[in-house]
Amino acid sequence: MNILKNPPREDWEEICTRPGLDAEFLRSSLRNLIERVRLGGDDAVREFTSQYDRVNIRELRVSEEEISEAVQILDDDLKNAIQVAADNIWKFHEKQVPPTAHVETMPGVKVWRKAVPIEKVGIYVPGGTAPLFSSVLMMAVPASIAGCHEIVLCTPPNKEGRVHPAILYAAQLTGVKNIFKIGGAQAIAAMSCGTESVPSVYKIYGPGNQYVTMAKQLVSEDGTAIDMPAGPSEVAVLSDHTAQPSYIAADLLSQAEHGSDSQVIFVTTDPSLPEKVKAEVDRQVAELPRKEMAREALKSSKIIYMDNLDNAVALINFYAAEHLIVQTENLDNVAEKITNAGSVFLGNYTPESAGDYASGTNHTLPTNANARAYSGLSTESFMKYITFQQISKEGLSILGPIVEKMAEAEELQAHKNAVSIRLTNG
Amino acid sequence: MNILKNPPREDWEEICTRPGLDAEFLRSSLRNLIERVRLGGDDAVREFTSQYDRVNIRELRVSEEEISEAVQILDDDLKNAIQVAADNIWKFHEKQVPPTAHVETMPGVKVWRKAVPIEKVGIYVPGGTAPLFSSVLMMAVPASIAGCHEIVLCTPPNKEGRVHPAILYAAQLTGVKNIFKIGGAQAIAAMSCGTESVPSVYKIYGPGNQYVTMAKQLVSEDGTAIDMPAGPSEVAVLSDHTAQPSYIAADLLSQAEHGSDSQVIFVTTDPSLPEKVKAEVDRQVAELPRKEMAREALKSSKIIYMDNLDNAVALINFYAAEHLIVQTENLDNVAEKITNAGSVFLGNYTPESAGDYASGTNHTLPTNANARAYSGLSTESFMKYITFQQISKEGLSILGPIVEKMAEAEELQAHKNAVSIRLTNG
Repeated sequence: MNILKNPPREDWEEICTRPGLDAEFLRSSLRNLIERVRLGGDDAVREFTSQYDRVNIRELRVSEEEISEAVQILDDDLKNAIQVAADNIWKFHEKQVPPTAHVETMPGVKVWRKAVPIEKVGIYVPGGTAPLFSSVLMMAVPASIAGCHEIVLCTPPNKEGRVHPAILYAAQLTGVKNIFKIGGAQAIAAMSCGTESVPSVYKIYGPGNQYVTMAKQLVSEDGTAIDMPAGPSEVAVLSDHTAQPSYIAADLLSQAEHGSDSQVIFVTTDPSLPEKVKAEVDRQVAELPRKEMAREALKSSKIIYMDNLDNAVALINFYAAEHLIVQTENLDNVAEKITNAGSVFLGNYTPESAGDYASGTNHTLPTNANARAYSGLSTESFMKYITFQQISKEGLSILGPIVEKMAEAEELQAHKNAVSIRLTNG
Repeated sequence: MNILKNPPREDWEEICTRPGLDAEFLRSSLRNLIERVRLGGDDAVREFTSQYDRVNIRELRVSEEEISEAVQILDDDLKNAIQVAADNIWKFHEKQVPPTAHVETMPGVKVWRKAVPIEKVGIYVPGGTAPLFSSVLMMAVPASIAGCHEIVLCTPPNKEGRVHPAILYAAQLTGVKNIFKIGGAQAIAAMSCGTESVPSVYKIYGPGNQYVTMAKQLVSEDGTAIDMPAGPSEVAVLSDHTAQPSYIAADLLSQAEHGSDSQVIFVTTDPSLPEKVKAEVDRQVAELPRKEMAREALKSSKIIYMDNLDNAVALINFYAAEHLIVQTENLDNVAEKITNAGSVFLGNYTPESAGDYASGTNHTLPTNANARAYSGLSTESFMKYITFQQISKEGLSILGPIVEKMAEAEELQAHKNAVSIRLTNG
């Protein structure tokens, strides 16, 4: 990890730039893949699965027997842990269901806004190096609370054509019934276009590699909504002298182990911590099973000393971290000043991994400085708002002339007529 | 307008497909334009303005003198109308500021979510055939309520290099100070990249033609958020026998006059209304200043008779209209069944144009069936959520083992370590 001291404001842009990822070259080949799934349906999906996952899948849908078996064979302690995590996620996300707000803006002019579930949603759970069953909870729990009518889940099969039992357990626990053994860009294409087996959905959620990310972008251009732009995972830690070097190192590594393209940064106002944390990171990384990945991620990572807390917070806000850990005095005061972050972890006993799994907050969060404008997943991500209005005859007699005046000034005569015809006839 | 009777379910997909718009061919030329603005700044913007708007602009920023002059010369009745509309929009949108929800998911595990304004936002107001000052209100009012620190507004200059005084009046009324005479894709590029004059922003809002739409899509791929995918405006009217043919015709035309690519559809359970409304549309369109545009839009528009209200509602939900006007008995009952729409106008005295201007609801709404998954603009569109969590030592002693178990099962050892090191040392 590279150590920087009091970098001037004009360097922040460069410091905060994430390692580049240009997937533009994938665009045309993935356009082709999506088109083949659109035309070929299940057969095309099977062909891509055979090609990319190296396994032949006849029945794309996971059967009820497979699900029951998963529930049976899974370790009870893990089942219990998943249950507790799901409960906590449920408790936090059920508070996010927006109430309907009614307003009478003028006498007889009633307007309101209602949140309505998105009818059909698709959840993508990556396979790859580890079975990310926690992602199932983070998407399926808010989808259930929102009341989505149809929840489709796609996840890649392993070489034996099976899905990890923890993923199936988490899915059945959260009421997901449509589970398919499909991974990668072909899963995104199938959920967007629909096939004989896979229902098409209106919005697709979930992390993935660069193929999945580009496929999501492409289907979003075709009219299927997506949760947010994806990028490699990242954490920023902000501390003063009260922080424990070993905790900070452990937190940085918990992000770095995600992948070689992950980024971690540590900003501190304590002059002695940069070297101490660096040494701790070096010590702890050596013992990790995924040390190669973590070491690669550390190469693009930074430790930054700032001699002033306000400047440190300003840099942190400019960076707009997916995960931000704050280990300082006066936590409330610092928390109040955070304006850009996905999720914030306050204090020495709040590691990021608590929120990754089980504290109740969502772990699907904006990366790559997108926290400046995007939120993480919430129950509202599985709903949309419809506004309503009802105007009485008397209401229109007051509001109508206002509308006529504005429509006329915008040179939209038919907009004016729609009011005038009612005021005249009425 | 084409009249259809009881179309079977398998035809709905085709009936509900909007007239095609393929802007893919614009991609590479607009990529180039954006790159030229990124590198060339104000000079590049001036060059594109000269080329596309046919006017040479030295000072891109609208001066305070120009704004004061606009306020002075604008007709008092129009100023009053704009003020009333702004007040109504304010009243509805201020109810949308989300409260902070605190939850203690387990003893010592506190989680909460706070809505925070997006610091820098950009508003695009198209020029073209009419000065759309109402769009200024629809974006700047919620941006002000949200508390966005910097609001940038771009709108194309006319041939004299000026901006319509109603646009400037609406901007100053809603506290927008950074106003630039820049239109089209170059405006989107300037707000995304930033130039010497134009501050870069984190999210861009507003309607526009196909160049603006594609430019917004391209900058969104580069990391600037956008409000929603845009498309031609549309209205659906749902009625039974209680509706007035002349009102329906006026409502359909108020949408059709927007542009030749607008679409209007009318679904009714009354067998006599299709012919009556068609005749009224033909009569009223003849008197419109924008009749050519409206007639062109009517060509791709449809009147559909359904012999059953439930089926009619199902078709309307499948269509997912930007604007939906409902003129039936039992309005509450029908409103309850609407699951996909941008904004709904209930009853004979609630024309769409009321919501377009002044009732208080937002007129920036999802088109092209995007109402299945997207909401219209709201105050939350100018904010993002940050989640927070704070766990006590005791809280971690309960939650920690759950996290350790799950991290281990996902084969993420460093995630587990971040908890274990605290439980051991603690």
